[in-house]
Amino acid sequence: MHTRPGMTGLAGAPEVVIERLPHYLRTLTQLNNSGVEIISSQHLGAELQVTSAQIRKDLSYFGRFGKQGRGYNVRHLLDRIRHILGLQTTRNIGVVGAGRLGRAIIGYPGFAPEGFKVTCVFDSNPRLIGQMAGGLMIHDMSNMKEILSREKVQIVILAVPPDNAQDVIDQVVRSSIKVILNYAPIAAHVPSDVHVRNVDPVLALQSMAYHLSIDS
Amino acid sequence: MHTRPGMTGLAGAPEVVIERLPHYLRTLTQLNNSGVEIISSQHLGAELQVTSAQIRKDLSYFGRFGKQGRGYNVRHLLDRIRHILGLQTTRNIGVVGAGRLGRAIIGYPGFAPEGFKVTCVFDSNPRLIGQMAGGLMIHDMSNMKEILSREKVQIVILAVPPDNAQDVIDQVVRSSIKVILNYAPIAAHVPSDVHVRNVDPVLALQSMAYHLSIDS
Repeated sequence: MHTRPGMTGLAGAPEVVIERLPHYLRTLTQLNNSGVEIISSQHLGAELQVTSAQIRKDLSYFGRFGKQGRGYNVRHLLDRIRHILGLQTTRNIGVVGAGRLGRAIIGYPGFAPEGFKVTCVFDSNPRLIGQMAGGLMIHDMSNMKEILSREKVQIVILAVPPDNAQDVIDQVVRSSIKVILNYAPIAAHVPSDVHVRNVDPVLALQSMAYHLSIDS
Repeated sequence: MHTRPGMTGLAGAPEVVIERLPHYLRTLTQLNNSGVEIISSQHLGAELQVTSAQIRKDLSYFGRFGKQGRGYNVRHLLDRIRHILGLQTTRNIGVVGAGRLGRAIIGYPGFAPEGFKVTCVFDSNPRLIGQMAGGLMIHDMSNMKEILSREKVQIVILAVPPDNAQDVIDQVVRSSIKVILNYAPIAAHVPSDVHVRNVDPVLALQSMAYHLSIDS
């Protein structure tokens, strides 16, 4: 399924809640690094700029967290959210598209510390195949299924131009990949058991333009 | 304010609805390009993989769209959503950070067709200042306020390393910018009248990992 803001996740928690958890994680990590051990839902809400009721409701999808009036143990909540999101495991990533954006993604230093590892890269351009990008050899896209399976890749990041992006997505789906981060500016079609997140910046700019429009 | 999934927009429409509108726009554009003139909320919902009730509810924040049972006029709905999002105007963008990611953003071909124009770029690295990136001269970050004002920039895209990202955000805020797309992996603090969207891919990967975790 497409995972768009507000959709319902498979296990009952709405997708919008799942999308907020990494923000909670980031703020809790910063609090933990600052030596904060216990935080009230009010203070956590202030840090995250959501209401404390929202935080309690979001967390309620995943069981009980702390006792009323006692605040959250920061490290414990961190661990629980990491566990909910399945971040205790390293996840291998394949990048499709070795152009400028693909290379920026491959070289992005923020993945490894969070347990995401780009292990292979693909392109269809004969001039790029066999060259190196970020220490990885660029593979022919036609060998995708075999290599993704061999490399135990679970997530594909798509950084290809829009024109043939749907064809490439179809090929990724045929390679048994269930999670796709799509930078190509298209509304992708995938089977219901495949999760696509569209992350191209134009979508973000378009929704942010709303605030310029109504504030001015 | 931070604009996280599910937050309430200033004009009453929840942020999560604002975030869905660009997806509607993209799908409607593809339908329009395919020659579709009228679409029922059921069919539009199927294309978008949301329910028709969700679509009707989302649009209800912005007035009346079409008549019950008649379906939506694709081109009319496109125009209305573009208007709601304030996309009838070209928006100038400043990119802060001229490293690999910043350069990928500057060179991204998807902005211009959608009315977003990168008009200036900044870095604090003396070796980069004065060089060219994507046809633009890299400015010294210390001249940011003056240049952003001169270039009538309304949106800043932040592509700097995490270490001093908050300092840079503070500087962007002091330059009277109200909309920031933040690729730096930090939970930024901004005044309540500034909208920050965190778009670094780790957040997306972390929430997508949830689906790998529960599906397997």
